[in-house]
Amino acid sequence: NLASCQRPFVGPSLESILEGIGKIADSRARADKLFEWLILPVSPSIFFSDVWEKKPALITRHNPGYYKGLFSTEVFHKILKENDVQYGVNLDVTSYNNGQRQTHNPPGRALPFSVWNYFKNGCSLRLLNPQAFSVTVWNVLSILQELFGSMAGANVYLTPAGTQGFAPHYDDIEAFIIQLEGKKHWRVYQPRMADEFLPQFSSPNFSQAEIGQPILEVVVEAGDLLYFPRGFIHQGDCLPDAHSLHITISSYQKNSWGSLLERLLPAALQIAVEEDVEFREGLPLDYFSYMGVQNSEKADPRRQMFIDKVQRLIRKLSNFCPLDAAVDQKAKDYLHDCLPPVLTEEEKATSVFGASTRWENGHVKDLALRFKGKTKIRLLRRGIARLFSEGENIALYYSLDNSRVYHKEEPKSFEVNSEHCDSIEFLINSYPSFVTVDSLPCEKLVEKISIAKLLFAKGLLVTEEPCVCE
Amino acid sequence: NLASCQRPFVGPSLESILEGIGKIADSRARADKLFEWLILPVSPSIFFSDVWEKKPALITRHNPGYYKGLFSTEVFHKILKENDVQYGVNLDVTSYNNGQRQTHNPPGRALPFSVWNYFKNGCSLRLLNPQAFSVTVWNVLSILQELFGSMAGANVYLTPAGTQGFAPHYDDIEAFIIQLEGKKHWRVYQPRMADEFLPQFSSPNFSQAEIGQPILEVVVEAGDLLYFPRGFIHQGDCLPDAHSLHITISSYQKNSWGSLLERLLPAALQIAVEEDVEFREGLPLDYFSYMGVQNSEKADPRRQMFIDKVQRLIRKLSNFCPLDAAVDQKAKDYLHDCLPPVLTEEEKATSVFGASTRWENGHVKDLALRFKGKTKIRLLRRGIARLFSEGENIALYYSLDNSRVYHKEEPKSFEVNSEHCDSIEFLINSYPSFVTVDSLPCEKLVEKISIAKLLFAKGLLVTEEPCVCE
Amino acid sequence: NLASCQRPFVGPSLESILEGIGKIADSRARADKLFEWLILPVSPSIFFSDVWEKKPALITRHNPGYYKGLFSTEVFHKILKENDVQYGVNLDVTSYNNGQRQTHNPPGRALPFSVWNYFKNGCSLRLLNPQAFSVTVWNVLSILQELFGSMAGANVYLTPAGTQGFAPHYDDIEAFIIQLEGKKHWRVYQPRMADEFLPQFSSPNFSQAEIGQPILEVVVEAGDLLYFPRGFIHQGDCLPDAHSLHITISSYQKNSWGSLLERLLPAALQIAVEEDVEFREGLPLDYFSYMGVQNSEKADPRRQMFIDKVQRLIRKLSNFCPLDAAVDQKAKDYLHDCLPPVLTEEEKATSVFGASTRWENGHVKDLALRFKGKTKIRLLRRGIARLFSEGENIALYYSLDNSRVYHKEEPKSFEVNSEHCDSIEFLINSYPSFVTVDSLPCEKLVEKISIAKLLFAKGLLVTEEPCVCE
Amino acid sequence: NLASCQRPFVGPSLESILEGIGKIADSRARADKLFEWLILPVSPSIFFSDVWEKKPALITRHNPGYYKGLFSTEVFHKILKENDVQYGVNLDVTSYNNGQRQTHNPPGRALPFSVWNYFKNGCSLRLLNPQAFSVTVWNVLSILQELFGSMAGANVYLTPAGTQGFAPHYDDIEAFIIQLEGKKHWRVYQPRMADEFLPQFSSPNFSQAEIGQPILEVVVEAGDLLYFPRGFIHQGDCLPDAHSLHITISSYQKNSWGSLLERLLPAALQIAVEEDVEFREGLPLDYFSYMGVQNSEKADPRRQMFIDKVQRLIRKLSNFCPLDAAVDQKAKDYLHDCLPPVLTEEEKATSVFGASTRWENGHVKDLALRFKGKTKIRLLRRGIARLFSEGENIALYYSLDNSRVYHKEEPKSFEVNSEHCDSIEFLINSYPSFVTVDSLPCEKLVEKISIAKLLFAKGLLVTEEPCVCE
Repeated sequence: NLASCQRPFVGPSLESILEGIGKIADSRARADKLFEWLILPVSPSIFFSDVWEKKPALITRHNPGYYKGLFSTEVFHKILKENDVQYGVNLDVTSYNNGQRQTHNPPGRALPFSVWNYFKNGCSLRLLNPQAFSVTVWNVLSILQELFGSMAGANVYLTPAGTQGFAPHYDDIEAFIIQLEGKKHWRVYQPRMADEFLPQFSSPNFSQAEIGQPILEVVVEAGDLLYFPRGFIHQGDCLPDAHSLHITISSYQKNSWGSLLERLLPAALQIAVEEDVEFREGLPLDYFSYMGVQNSEKADPRRQMFIDKVQRLIRKLSNFCPLDAAVDQKAKDYLHDCLPPVLTEEEKATSVFGASTRWENGHVKDLALRFKGKTKIRLLRRGIARLFSEGENIALYYSLDNSRVYHKEEPKSFEVNSEHCDSIEFLINSYPSFVTVDSLPCEKLVEKISIAKLLFAKGLLVTEEPCVCE
Repeated sequence: NLASCQRPFVGPSLESILEGIGKIADSRARADKLFEWLILPVSPSIFFSDVWEKKPALITRHNPGYYKGLFSTEVFHKILKENDVQYGVNLDVTSYNNGQRQTHNPPGRALPFSVWNYFKNGCSLRLLNPQAFSVTVWNVLSILQELFGSMAGANVYLTPAGTQGFAPHYDDIEAFIIQLEGKKHWRVYQPRMADEFLPQFSSPNFSQAEIGQPILEVVVEAGDLLYFPRGFIHQGDCLPDAHSLHITISSYQKNSWGSLLERLLPAALQIAVEEDVEFREGLPLDYFSYMGVQNSEKADPRRQMFIDKVQRLIRKLSNFCPLDAAVDQKAKDYLHDCLPPVLTEEEKATSVFGASTRWENGHVKDLALRFKGKTKIRLLRRGIARLFSEGENIALYYSLDNSRVYHKEEPKSFEVNSEHCDSIEFLINSYPSFVTVDSLPCEKLVEKISIAKLLFAKGLLVTEEPCVCE
Repeated sequence: NLASCQRPFVGPSLESILEGIGKIADSRARADKLFEWLILPVSPSIFFSDVWEKKPALITRHNPGYYKGLFSTEVFHKILKENDVQYGVNLDVTSYNNGQRQTHNPPGRALPFSVWNYFKNGCSLRLLNPQAFSVTVWNVLSILQELFGSMAGANVYLTPAGTQGFAPHYDDIEAFIIQLEGKKHWRVYQPRMADEFLPQFSSPNFSQAEIGQPILEVVVEAGDLLYFPRGFIHQGDCLPDAHSLHITISSYQKNSWGSLLERLLPAALQIAVEEDVEFREGLPLDYFSYMGVQNSEKADPRRQMFIDKVQRLIRKLSNFCPLDAAVDQKAKDYLHDCLPPVLTEEEKATSVFGASTRWENGHVKDLALRFKGKTKIRLLRRGIARLFSEGENIALYYSLDNSRVYHKEEPKSFEVNSEHCDSIEFLINSYPSFVTVDSLPCEKLVEKISIAKLLFAKGLLVTEEPCVCE
Repeated sequence: NLASCQRPFVGPSLESILEGIGKIADSRARADKLFEWLILPVSPSIFFSDVWEKKPALITRHNPGYYKGLFSTEVFHKILKENDVQYGVNLDVTSYNNGQRQTHNPPGRALPFSVWNYFKNGCSLRLLNPQAFSVTVWNVLSILQELFGSMAGANVYLTPAGTQGFAPHYDDIEAFIIQLEGKKHWRVYQPRMADEFLPQFSSPNFSQAEIGQPILEVVVEAGDLLYFPRGFIHQGDCLPDAHSLHITISSYQKNSWGSLLERLLPAALQIAVEEDVEFREGLPLDYFSYMGVQNSEKADPRRQMFIDKVQRLIRKLSNFCPLDAAVDQKAKDYLHDCLPPVLTEEEKATSVFGASTRWENGHVKDLALRFKGKTKIRLLRRGIARLFSEGENIALYYSLDNSRVYHKEEPKSFEVNSEHCDSIEFLINSYPSFVTVDSLPCEKLVEKISIAKLLFAKGLLVTEEPCVCE
């Protein structure tokens, strides 16, 4: 139990935090601030050094309203009423009775009429990707993903009193369970063996017999937070006297050194083969006669020579690592995976989204600023875009036009004129400072303005002053 | 010039060599014998230590009939007349004039009438995969592939006097150019740069200006052999006084250490990730901010730490190498790539292909041997089959039912009862010795006979005695 | 010019019409009412007998506000600002200058900033499927489609003063051009030949030289309507003094007798072949020798016999027509093509969408009516659902869950218990009258209630009384 | 029993028939001659008027050697030994015991060793498409298909004494069962209902209880022929004292008037829609309200009007029939389906296959005729090629390069210069007469020779004189 005060812990409200965050210049710093609030009174530096990827932890606050405004059953109901929530796509109806986990999704739209009927009959409800329906959840996740450098996701779980909705299992993500209403009895178990610590894949459902004794057994109440790393088996059930609503925020799916090496190794081998003839030399004439499983017991001295040679080549491979390019592959994935940002009012006012071109009395009124040499600009957010070389060309990939639904849109990018690359890199590296259009490292002013206009039109650029001139 | 006698070199004929080879017990030794003849009077040990994958070499014999029986223009004509040779599939009609390489294939079947018309008009003819049409070429290649442990292929080139059919280029295979009729003027050039030495891919056509001066310029006459490794640029043209017919035997395509690592590395990484938690640990929170091409010039100390960590993990990878399994993947490919064997008369008589079950006077006469405990058996050829585990099962892959046309058949295999594996391995390892059915490491005689019968029925087994009883 | 008053024609507003319509019981009658308003003061009976599918017609009203509320450039701007309108998908930027038609769509989202820039530079804007963005347009089209029995679509065109956006062409739909703002100069031309009257496919762009003289040349002003049938070539351009905004409502694409026969003939032939042996008898042995194009000039008497036989069989085919099944195929297509209905407040209150199950203080409050024998019910709309047999099963297809974007959703249906078919047919045929649950032709009350609940849960049923008790 | 002599009927041998046939000029007449022999002493005119597609018939000859040379078990054995016959692809091993039909195919090649083992254990063997392995069967079928104007196929059945290999069933082809060795007891049954007379599809296996009493029960002996039309149920079993070998020759699969109409109707409708506006007129506004299955009981007078209109349109359709084009579609299918011809010695000598271009002593010797104006030519066979228009182009489709395996090759064709069409049609229509190159309806001699050379090179043309000079 990481933090357990006897008296209620009263922190700032989500609303005030989000408002304050909007005033922080650097979007990366905003993420730090929001995460800090999420785990108050625990400090992030302690969390990341002692807990993260290591062990489960509970933060108890005796303050049911701590996470107020993040999500509620009222909001859940409103979402069902006003959105085309589909069973099996956006909502799962589940139960876990007598060791039996079941899914009850009918086909078609999940209207409150039938959803609440399931709930009254003891079924749990899991709303998948609430960020697609709730702007607040979307905003919170889109901020946090900048901290993680990895997509942040969420699910919402509503469980009737006295029931359990899911069998014991472990997941492939770091999980932050944020209790919003009621309370829930949780049991968390040690990974069963070394192989299941920080696993790549989620587990199947376990029977109670398979999981041993919990290392953590607690009742999480509204306002509390429970964290556990991937691989820790867990199960939660409602006490007879209260329903439970929690949101699980997750991240770090397939974000391991191994997943980077998956990207890196084929590229490294290709370079090694191209650059070092030793990798292109022919295999020995007779190696099928002493290598291979059917020869693995043979005492042929050529076996050891062959093995040594391969091991030497693998070690040599580390000299041919296009590591920055492999990281860029991960970065490109991240730009596609992640949520688009939720713009603050100020960001809207200083970007194309507030550019006050409008229709008035049958005419286009263009009230927006003109870009000039002294106009001050910066990128909308720190990680909003990144340059990648693609064969001969250079392209700018960006997350701004992503959908709130995972991968509903193709990766978004456009080709960049090679003379403009330095200017875009300059903008990326200058963030969060504003720079003048004049300062772009590019020959002519007309070119500088053209770059600024292009990025502005795509929504990737904000100006220091709002885009309105009387 | 590796071997250049003043006087004609007279060796054994191909016919006698092939006949003699049939009497060698071990099919691997047959390959040695045939290759030895191919490069006589040069010794294979000198060839493989000094020449192979290193430099071009010419063997001059002053004996136009040395390769008699391998292939001839007469045989070419007969193939066109009697087989469905298709332009563009089995035969290419080409020319190279004034630096211009052209292909003249019409659609449809290549009948002698139109093929010879092209030839008379100065076009070169390239017969692809003559092994599909000539039993002798098939036989020679199927024997040689056992030496190389890599598919052996061939093309035949017929060029009119005074012409050239192809532009200068290099190939991705080791090439043995065997002059069969007439003569040809060859120029061979050093790879233009280190990267093009032992290359993975063939080159495009080069202009004369791109290739520099030849390192070898010779007239190859009937009975001579010219070898050069992959990557050596070459061009050949006919002198005004004689046409040229040669067959190019090739091998070692994608048979390098790099191609083995392509198979090995993904498997090694998968094992490392499963077994070593360091590979599963999360990437640092902020690595996008100092890694990636856009940060490659940054002096951030975290860069070096990141790079060191990755290099250490790659070196560590060499501890997780399923090398025998990767070799087996190569072996499985080889079993699919390679030609089926041409059976000798003795092999036919002692295998299912000669098993004298027949139809006589309205009845099946079964004259074949019965398998008994003392029946002596061995595999048909050394590399004819190999065991592979596939998930839970074990399968025997074999090349016997391959087609003479590359990959026309799917890989051939059948599942093996796990109790029979030891016996099949015993047979593989006993080759070339005959063993009794009794000696198979298996409990009951009935099982031993069942294994023998199964392999015999598939054609993979021969008996010591012919399969006929009075 | 179908209707041209000297004085302004003042009719009811769209708002009042839509409000009045909501009170009409039968949704089919609502469509009549709305269409009547659309072409006031012309009567629908005269329109459909004299004009529809026959000739162009203009209705002049001298009342720029007649169609107020349907769409406006203000709404257009708001749509761009608030929705993810994509160039090339939802919006086309076009120009037509010196006989040259061009499209200027950049990639990505169409934000007002760049859209209005194009407009200021003289480009026309075509908003595709405004029904996806405007609830009013959606409502109007979804009502009208019931009149047509064929999907109703729309595009919006905004053209700068003094320009033309499109080349002369004809379309494959009946077109109602509703002038919303400004005015436009239109020229309409007779189909160029009999084949192009009521064509199946739209034309390419024509040059001015190809189309001859217009049969109708008018300036259409805000509040006017111009109709022309498919096949009539047309072009519109803006006068120098005013921009133009119009919406084109279209219908009857591929809704011809021929399109019905396309569905019918294969089914008719299949039945004829199954039921009449004459269709299964073999063709004459020698018919290749006297039939076929190469014999078409031959005077062989067998030709006429063969032709007569075929013509007789075709005529005979009319006895094997599964005509109702073919119409059902068209109806199934229609149910997939058409827009979902926009519910009135009353419809919401009496359907599942208003069913007042809700979340209150941590508990589900179920305030909705219970279905009883005396509960009065009817279908939501006349054409909202239709029964189809599919092999052994019967399925109810319905349009309620269609998307506002054409075919974005798969056809929606669910299997119907065969004992429930009569009850559903009874409900379909009783519409627009309310019937009691008791009156469903089904044995037990529990079954009747089950049918009512199922259709209610899917949204297809309304009750006479709102679904709220006390 | 169509023909049953008391004394043996001795006719000409197959060998002499085939030899005689080779001398008949017209390949269509060859087919008549061969078919006549097949059913001797019955006359083809009686067969086609009284039996064909009407009823089963038996021809008894008391002459076991009548079909000698067509196929035998000796040949069967040789095929297994020398060809890559694959179980399940080329050979089926079946049994029928106690009403249970089973297939016993193992994977892989069917070598005599295992095939005869199955046979000895009481299994029947069905060799599929023996024409791929036996030149005689290929020759017979390729000749007969010209009579039928429909692909002729075959299967061979070898059944052990005292067994039955197949369950009772009917087929979708006209069947000629030719008894080659031994004898077989056959029972043939009337189609069970009108719908199953001349059916489009083969039946499943029937139980004995489903098929009633046979209308024909006979023992067919070597030299006899049994015919029955598609739809007649049949089963055959071996008597205890003799095995049975028969070949079934089949034709007329999907060769009915209905199959022609399947090709014709969509094309006819397309033309009608293009040419007759009545087919393009819109459907009535309200037809969904009175048509469709849910309205089929309604007494709405509009129903009859609608039905009448559709029936009138269908009858009208017979005026828009592109019948020759539809026959050409069937002809194109036939050209793809059918076997390539087996050339006679004379055909070889006078075609490109015998054109005596050859390789001699290092040079191409071109001994073949030169085409001149007076050279006499004709097509190789009557139905060997046919012209088809394809959009703007004209193509000549031909069967010469088909494979002996059904559809193994794509349809073969080449584009024909439009100026050459008349000449090719002239050649088609002149067949079987020889015409001079001069007589081709084409302007210049050089063009005429070019056409002749092109067709000759493709193998489609023969000359009157052998292609050798001096």
